[in-house]
Amino acid sequence: MAGLSSYQLSNVKYAMKNLLETPVAILELDQFERNLVKLQRYLDAHGIANRPHIKTHKIPEIARMQIEHGAVGITCQKLGEAEVMADAGITDIFLPYNILGEQKLARLVALTKRVKMSVTADSAVTVHGLSAAMQHAGLELETLVEFDTGAQRCGVQTPAAAAELARLIAHSPGLHFGGLMTFPCNANTDPFVLAVRELLHPDGIAVQRISGGGTARMWHAHEHKTITEYRSGMYIYGDRNTLINNAMSLDEIAFKVICTVVSRPTADRGILDGGSKTFSSDASLKDGHGLILEYPEARFYGMSEEHGHVDFSACPARPQIGERVTVIPNHCCPVSNLFNEIIGVRSEQVEQVWRVAARGLLT
Amino acid sequence: MAGLSSYQLSNVKYAMKNLLETPVAILELDQFERNLVKLQRYLDAHGIANRPHIKTHKIPEIARMQIEHGAVGITCQKLGEAEVMADAGITDIFLPYNILGEQKLARLVALTKRVKMSVTADSAVTVHGLSAAMQHAGLELETLVEFDTGAQRCGVQTPAAAAELARLIAHSPGLHFGGLMTFPCNANTDPFVLAVRELLHPDGIAVQRISGGGTARMWHAHEHKTITEYRSGMYIYGDRNTLINNAMSLDEIAFKVICTVVSRPTADRGILDGGSKTFSSDASLKDGHGLILEYPEARFYGMSEEHGHVDFSACPARPQIGERVTVIPNHCCPVSNLFNEIIGVRSEQVEQVWRVAARGLLT
Repeated sequence: MAGLSSYQLSNVKYAMKNLLETPVAILELDQFERNLVKLQRYLDAHGIANRPHIKTHKIPEIARMQIEHGAVGITCQKLGEAEVMADAGITDIFLPYNILGEQKLARLVALTKRVKMSVTADSAVTVHGLSAAMQHAGLELETLVEFDTGAQRCGVQTPAAAAELARLIAHSPGLHFGGLMTFPCNANTDPFVLAVRELLHPDGIAVQRISGGGTARMWHAHEHKTITEYRSGMYIYGDRNTLINNAMSLDEIAFKVICTVVSRPTADRGILDGGSKTFSSDASLKDGHGLILEYPEARFYGMSEEHGHVDFSACPARPQIGERVTVIPNHCCPVSNLFNEIIGVRSEQVEQVWRVAARGLLT
Repeated sequence: MAGLSSYQLSNVKYAMKNLLETPVAILELDQFERNLVKLQRYLDAHGIANRPHIKTHKIPEIARMQIEHGAVGITCQKLGEAEVMADAGITDIFLPYNILGEQKLARLVALTKRVKMSVTADSAVTVHGLSAAMQHAGLELETLVEFDTGAQRCGVQTPAAAAELARLIAHSPGLHFGGLMTFPCNANTDPFVLAVRELLHPDGIAVQRISGGGTARMWHAHEHKTITEYRSGMYIYGDRNTLINNAMSLDEIAFKVICTVVSRPTADRGILDGGSKTFSSDASLKDGHGLILEYPEARFYGMSEEHGHVDFSACPARPQIGERVTVIPNHCCPVSNLFNEIIGVRSEQVEQVWRVAARGLLT
């Protein structure tokens, strides 16, 4: 528990879960451990490598558990996260991000010297920067081409552009072409990959590693015949999104936020002690900010920074002031990112306090 | 810079602002200092006490500057914030929150022993808890009644309910009735206060302290004749909301986030290295997630966790990959809450690195 302030420790001096001060983010360890196993077994059964995305938890201890359960390595989204995870003994890190600029390239070189790194690029600018840095350091970095399957974020737009960038990588000193990466996996994925393979065949450039991802459709990973590895973040925690997407059942959701009802200003309205600085303002679901387990008919309709605004009018009973409620957030990733620590509980007892060590490392 | 990790320090080893790694949150110190002075002078001129809300910055050094400039004390929203600020030498702290539960009341007692605390209540449950804790500790706590002027968050609904709760406070051992508190100030504020005063007049209970707040209408504070103190958070930083509300001009915005364009997947689209974990998903403005100063016609239309999605189609020129852009976020409070440190710059040079010491202290 080194590194926790006295305020944070005040959360954990009581061993019973129901004495934790609120708002508190808890992880139900029995279910969390079942979640760790379930996706690993599924991917193993289909010969797909599991490369979990640590953006969900940002906790080195959990990353190590994922590796112990059979993950080939992890996925990070920022250099700072990769540095924390390398410090924690993770030896295979995929950073599917365009790394640009002298300082970031120097940090990537330092990481590549100590762990097996791989990255993505979607432009010649990124490839030239990576190549110059790695060549200068006498290293060789596995570089994948990111392609866009419809998310309209990063990624080359056509198989021809992907093939052109793959050729550039293959011929760039300090780099070797690793394959292709996309998010999310959908009906466009296999045709795109096959088209790139065909375009690169005459060049003798193999397209080996195909990295797909997305928790919403994780149980469909095997339907994408070209995928060789899968990146899911949320499978260990779960949230209202994974529930609505039928990716996880209600029983499988292991990550919850306990709040206290601090005000009942009207007969229908209740105010929780967690708002947008607890639940984030993630807008992925339009019908409320979370599911309140004790009052499933309640509508968590609004938030200010430190207050949650709930309409209990549809509920047969209403909560008392001071009552605790358990919330499944819409999206667990930005929520765990707002907490300094996550409390692991088993049989209503606190068993673990994990510091969210890689949170806030935005560069 | 104690407490900063090596990753965080990598941000500041370059003295020039334009060498800071992105995404980075900067505070332009010349303007920040002018903002500190401007609201203080305005409130002084109208005989209204300035009690800034530290939720915006969560930085003890800035709280101390606000006191040095004439603030009577500060406002915190959580006990954890108040504890950090008390540790930093702030001696007058208002916590306008219903404090409930044994552990939180014990922490409030500990705070009340060392600094001048005041709190709010909007229910008899809260008042009974405060009274029992303070009486047991031999303390007397100034307690205000929160009333609802239309924000529909916490707060009693009618002047009669406010008067009843004020009487309960006045007669509760360990407490004394301080006055009334609301957010935001609007046309309902004065009539509500005057009605409560009239109701309490026969009881001989004075309604002295009237605490109003809200940055959007801070320059109208003096129009509310009953207000004796004002709580603003954002006046020191500014954001796209304060700009749109005409509470601050573009030149007065001191808080900005510098990002790098990491991808240009199409002719129109540009991707920044900051997404919802940098800018939050604050939905207070519907037309985009921030104003890009170098490309004011650009539309910051989407975000994933670590990528910002920008449409540059309306811009006369488009950015290159690797180019840096300066973003004024929609709402500065949840943004500064996502960073571990804020970088103070003057004349393009780094002058300060302030740790956001009270962030993540949700209880």
